[in-house]
Amino acid sequence: MNSRTICVPNKAITEVKTIESINDMLSTRRILPVPVALVPTMGYLHSGHLSLVKKAREENQSVVVSIFVNPAQFGPSEDFENYPRDIGHDFALLANENVDAVFIPAVKEMYPLDFSFHIEGGWITERLEGASRPGHFRGVTTVVAKLFNIIQPTCAYFGQKDAQQAAVIRKMVTDLNMNVEIKTCSTVREPDGLAMSSRNTYLKPSERRAATILYRALILSEKLWKEGEKNAKRIRNEMKALIDKEPMASVDYISLADGNTMNEVDEACKGTLVSLAVKIGNTRLIDNTILE
Amino acid sequence: MNSRTICVPNKAITEVKTIESINDMLSTRRILPVPVALVPTMGYLHSGHLSLVKKAREENQSVVVSIFVNPAQFGPSEDFENYPRDIGHDFALLANENVDAVFIPAVKEMYPLDFSFHIEGGWITERLEGASRPGHFRGVTTVVAKLFNIIQPTCAYFGQKDAQQAAVIRKMVTDLNMNVEIKTCSTVREPDGLAMSSRNTYLKPSERRAATILYRALILSEKLWKEGEKNAKRIRNEMKALIDKEPMASVDYISLADGNTMNEVDEACKGTLVSLAVKIGNTRLIDNTILE
Repeated sequence: MNSRTICVPNKAITEVKTIESINDMLSTRRILPVPVALVPTMGYLHSGHLSLVKKAREENQSVVVSIFVNPAQFGPSEDFENYPRDIGHDFALLANENVDAVFIPAVKEMYPLDFSFHIEGGWITERLEGASRPGHFRGVTTVVAKLFNIIQPTCAYFGQKDAQQAAVIRKMVTDLNMNVEIKTCSTVREPDGLAMSSRNTYLKPSERRAATILYRALILSEKLWKEGEKNAKRIRNEMKALIDKEPMASVDYISLADGNTMNEVDEACKGTLVSLAVKIGNTRLIDNTILE
Repeated sequence: MNSRTICVPNKAITEVKTIESINDMLSTRRILPVPVALVPTMGYLHSGHLSLVKKAREENQSVVVSIFVNPAQFGPSEDFENYPRDIGHDFALLANENVDAVFIPAVKEMYPLDFSFHIEGGWITERLEGASRPGHFRGVTTVVAKLFNIIQPTCAYFGQKDAQQAAVIRKMVTDLNMNVEIKTCSTVREPDGLAMSSRNTYLKPSERRAATILYRALILSEKLWKEGEKNAKRIRNEMKALIDKEPMASVDYISLADGNTMNEVDEACKGTLVSLAVKIGNTRLIDNTILE
């Protein structure tokens, strides 16, 4: 166990307690005042992550942030190796947030060579993101279950941007009777509406401009809904037609679903989750809104 | 939450606290002094179970016994419906053991209609019992993880008779970082060597006599090993030849394996797990020994 001394511009030098081993995390956990919040992240932190950390800080006696780029949730053709990492910047951001500990294990600490157990979620993990990224949610649920067991948080904070992930984790907690409260916080957006995401860094300037198409399609769904359109197929079609006008964008899926079960709906209603995945060039982005 | 008043012959009337709902178990757990032991069972208790309960009672402040015939660990052609049940007898036995609570949930309490999550163990769950009973260990690990989350035991007691099950659960605890110590207790045997098992009740008198062949084959393996035989194949072959002399017995598998990984070995050594599954008539029995 050690601490990382961070020099934050215009601030006093701040120390963030960093923990790399599971045993050290278990010992630290024993002396943390409850309630203990966990904010699980893959690092490369942005304002979206920080909004979770701030909320966790407001609502709990102790806050643990985990930083772990989890290989198990990346497919073989996905961007695990190239996933953006900047630990120095992450710690500089966290130094302002008064977190009690940052758990930052190595891959071999979390997945020793003979590791073989996984958590499978069934239907809710097999569609939308799960259909486009086979095995993705198996990796997510397995690492989150491990983090829950290691950190034993009272509650854990997830971003609404990954709406299906939050639904999958809630279902895992319910089905497996885990003693953790799952809290979801609103998506944080750039001024032009693009949802904050570590993957936005992949976008070239022209792609960055095109990427607002996801948000614009969601706004369109909200507009149609407010005008009285309930037919999910018509809403999806109008969103698709809008996105198709953007030459750099290619739709992976557009969904109107029940936000708990992820079952597709025929009729939109209050609470329906409108979500979409769109490739902008080579970068796959996701976003969603809940109809009100 | 309620209690079951049991009239035990020649004893005062004893009360055993029974808990049927998960919420009641969670509330009860909060007031149990630690360390808390869990003895998970499928009921139809015999001296093997009671040896676990007694050991748990000796070593802990609180003892919870669970009784749950877990449908998820039975294959479609297996004996879930006909698995022997006698709750009255189970409570009569437990009334002597000073347990703090018996958790006895209904199937729908553990597996509501929309239940979909499971725990998969990989290789260690796929061979021997896992090969003969596809999905069996998925059911075991899932229900044990649920029981661990609901009862939050300090330690849990399993019988050595189900050696692969104990190894699978130890691996799950390690891989998923569960905060439970797994303790294994020696197999309890009938005077003629037959391992105690709820399934022994299926045996007709002639089958009951033939069933000692499992123990006799294990004794043979120990004898060969003590005489200096190290070749696993030769030991297996001699065991098979012995069992084949018993007309009612049909070998499912005979294994010499590493007791932690369940990997088959070519050369026996101290600590090698010798295990076997044999059908006696329609009843499939298992047993094992560890070479010393």
